[in-house]
Amino acid sequence: MAADPAAGKTMAATQCQTCHGLDGIAQIPIAPHLAGESRIYLETQLKAFRSGKRQHEIMSLIAKNLTDEEISNLAAWYESINITATLPDPPK
Amino acid sequence: MAADPAAGKTMAATQCQTCHGLDGIAQIPIAPHLAGESRIYLETQLKAFRSGKRQHEIMSLIAKNLTDEEISNLAAWYESINITATLPDPPK
Repeated sequence: MAADPAAGKTMAATQCQTCHGLDGIAQIPIAPHLAGESRIYLETQLKAFRSGKRQHEIMSLIAKNLTDEEISNLAAWYESINITATLPDPPK
Repeated sequence: MAADPAAGKTMAATQCQTCHGLDGIAQIPIAPHLAGESRIYLETQLKAFRSGKRQHEIMSLIAKNLTDEEISNLAAWYESINITATLPDPPK
């Protein structure tokens, strides 16, 4: 089944936004930005939290209740965000 | 000791760039973007790979040889990159 980024966005608004931002820009330093990360990376990490292979006090709780479909949708949402990176000016 | 992002950049060019990009934009789908991630997040993950708390076939090997100073420098480099996120156009 094709992933549904719009459904992922809706779920992200309640499950992910507080820490990771709806646009995938993290709101707190301990959380990573998710904007533009690949679906395969995001799905792998959510499934690793769900299985216990990767552990974190918050993410392990959130991920354990996610279905494969929800994981695909969330990953499709965050992948769909475009990011651009700008290097810092070199030291003077 | 203060972290040295320039030293981190030099090290990233040999240790991280192939997968994560020197600018922190991942070159392969299984690797996350690192651009603009916070120092605390990046240091925590590198130390988790080094200790074995987080495991990955490539990162576990790379991280096991890093010193605390190198980890701080690498994290300072990737944190120093600015990112902007642009939401996708809503479906028509």
